[in-house]
Amino acid sequence: MSTKPPPYRVCLIGSGGVGTIASVVLTKSGQAHVTCVLRSKYNYVSQHGWDIDSIDHGKLLGWKPGRIVRSADEASTDENGDPVEYDYVVVCTKQLPNLNPVADLISPVMTSGKTTVIMIQNGIGIEEEIIQAWPGNAVMSSDPNVVVQIAKDVSKMGPHLHAGLDDSVSIERARRFVDMYVMGGASVCELVEDIQVARWEKLLWNGTFNTVCALMRMDVGEIQRSKGRESMLIPMMWEIWNIAKAAGHPMPETIVEWMAYRLPDELSYRPSMLLDLENGRPMELEVILGNPLKKAQELGVDTPHMATVHKLLKLEEWKMDQEKTAGTT
Amino acid sequence: MSTKPPPYRVCLIGSGGVGTIASVVLTKSGQAHVTCVLRSKYNYVSQHGWDIDSIDHGKLLGWKPGRIVRSADEASTDENGDPVEYDYVVVCTKQLPNLNPVADLISPVMTSGKTTVIMIQNGIGIEEEIIQAWPGNAVMSSDPNVVVQIAKDVSKMGPHLHAGLDDSVSIERARRFVDMYVMGGASVCELVEDIQVARWEKLLWNGTFNTVCALMRMDVGEIQRSKGRESMLIPMMWEIWNIAKAAGHPMPETIVEWMAYRLPDELSYRPSMLLDLENGRPMELEVILGNPLKKAQELGVDTPHMATVHKLLKLEEWKMDQEKTAGTT
Repeated sequence: MSTKPPPYRVCLIGSGGVGTIASVVLTKSGQAHVTCVLRSKYNYVSQHGWDIDSIDHGKLLGWKPGRIVRSADEASTDENGDPVEYDYVVVCTKQLPNLNPVADLISPVMTSGKTTVIMIQNGIGIEEEIIQAWPGNAVMSSDPNVVVQIAKDVSKMGPHLHAGLDDSVSIERARRFVDMYVMGGASVCELVEDIQVARWEKLLWNGTFNTVCALMRMDVGEIQRSKGRESMLIPMMWEIWNIAKAAGHPMPETIVEWMAYRLPDELSYRPSMLLDLENGRPMELEVILGNPLKKAQELGVDTPHMATVHKLLKLEEWKMDQEKTAGTT
Repeated sequence: MSTKPPPYRVCLIGSGGVGTIASVVLTKSGQAHVTCVLRSKYNYVSQHGWDIDSIDHGKLLGWKPGRIVRSADEASTDENGDPVEYDYVVVCTKQLPNLNPVADLISPVMTSGKTTVIMIQNGIGIEEEIIQAWPGNAVMSSDPNVVVQIAKDVSKMGPHLHAGLDDSVSIERARRFVDMYVMGGASVCELVEDIQVARWEKLLWNGTFNTVCALMRMDVGEIQRSKGRESMLIPMMWEIWNIAKAAGHPMPETIVEWMAYRLPDELSYRPSMLLDLENGRPMELEVILGNPLKKAQELGVDTPHMATVHKLLKLEEWKMDQEKTAGTT
């Protein structure tokens, strides 16, 4: 290994499984000095590091990134108190715009016109607040790809092209990041030059299986065996397909059948939103259903199933809030 | 009391609270000899009778109707084996057309052209199978009025007018039954000459509060406090209002607001379908949502919320069936 410092400075926010693996990949690439912002896990990880056991990266005991800090504010200066300018800020938190807007979260580590934001997060329209806040910066995204482990998908990453920046610049910065990711050993990562279609494709899963499994407290196999796939999920998938088409991101027609029937009927997989609901944790409801429904309304697309499921899951959120309030009094 | 036998023979099927009170009322009128068909409760009631404590009828210990039998077949002949012709057959069972069609249930005690059927049951379109099977008989209905006890409604009874019988005959037979009911001490019973509007009015409750409380496992007050009333119930009420209008049974526009806001926000009332779901008992889903949705489809009425709630409750039914199957293996 060369002694030259790595060419890029990366700040990574979010310490779940996705964030941890991302920090390993970026460090292993040799291209990045990675600063990880940890909140609740700071004390443990700064002392003991992470124990990681991954197919792509093997066993790592007590692994630590370049630097571990408690907050984005702390990350905004180095150990000597001098300001740090980041090339990339990688966001691996849950997407909860009402609770925790990403623009607020990353604000201390952003340099206008320089820092590229990578959102490894679920949902539709998540880039909009970032483009609004930093109109001259590149923004790219990838989904956290929980389903990857079941279905061996390729993880797609790509830029959100926007008016404040030449498309070629957005694409170039995304390409550099993906190259770095691949050099770090992420075996299934692919650059797409317009990420929007990929995000709508992923929504075919997240807006349907993820939401209906949560609402009905059923796992993927149960939804399939109960014919809920045919009565609910496929109609919802066509609603998503129609919004995406109206929004200028058409998907092939065959994708609905493929997405609906790719997984075995006996699979007892419990999607993330169901786990969140069962554990009283906030659901990513607004970016998964709320934002697509706003687009549908703007574009005049009919969404009877999605809109109803969204309203019913809002009632689940209310119940969760009630339980929390009851628990604290 | 006169020693003359009462003028009408009534066969009453269904031994829940509604059926029990109906048999008391009809017997007390002095106008009816009541034969009650009991299944699971036959042994107990034929020995001990019923203990009844009611606001309208006071305390009755060990009360028994004119005759108690085990089946409609047994009711079709008297103690000597001679055939009995009934003036009225009163049905107080749950409305489960797929499990237990009423036409099959009452077939042994029906005399063509003579016996009037009174369905004290929930739902829309429940009279159709009866009119089809006995086109020359009168059919009337009333809802079981579970909400009565909260909101002090008047119980409306009335005929389902149909082509096989002069309207005047249908109305006359219904009037005689309502008179008998009032003579028996039912304080809040009223004849309406076309019961259809009353049934659609009742569906504004049963198709909305009853179904959404069940699906969401929330009581009436919770649905109201969570704003589920505004997001879900009121839109569903307008869907029902529109189907009823298209079907020729228009309701006043003010009824939606009245039905939505009549009950206090702190009410912890758990509607019948929620209790059924919690106790693994079949829900009256098809007559409460399925039949209205069929009408909506015939008439081209848009029902996004109702249709989705119906599909989701079908998944609850599937879960219930799975649990039953698991329990018996």
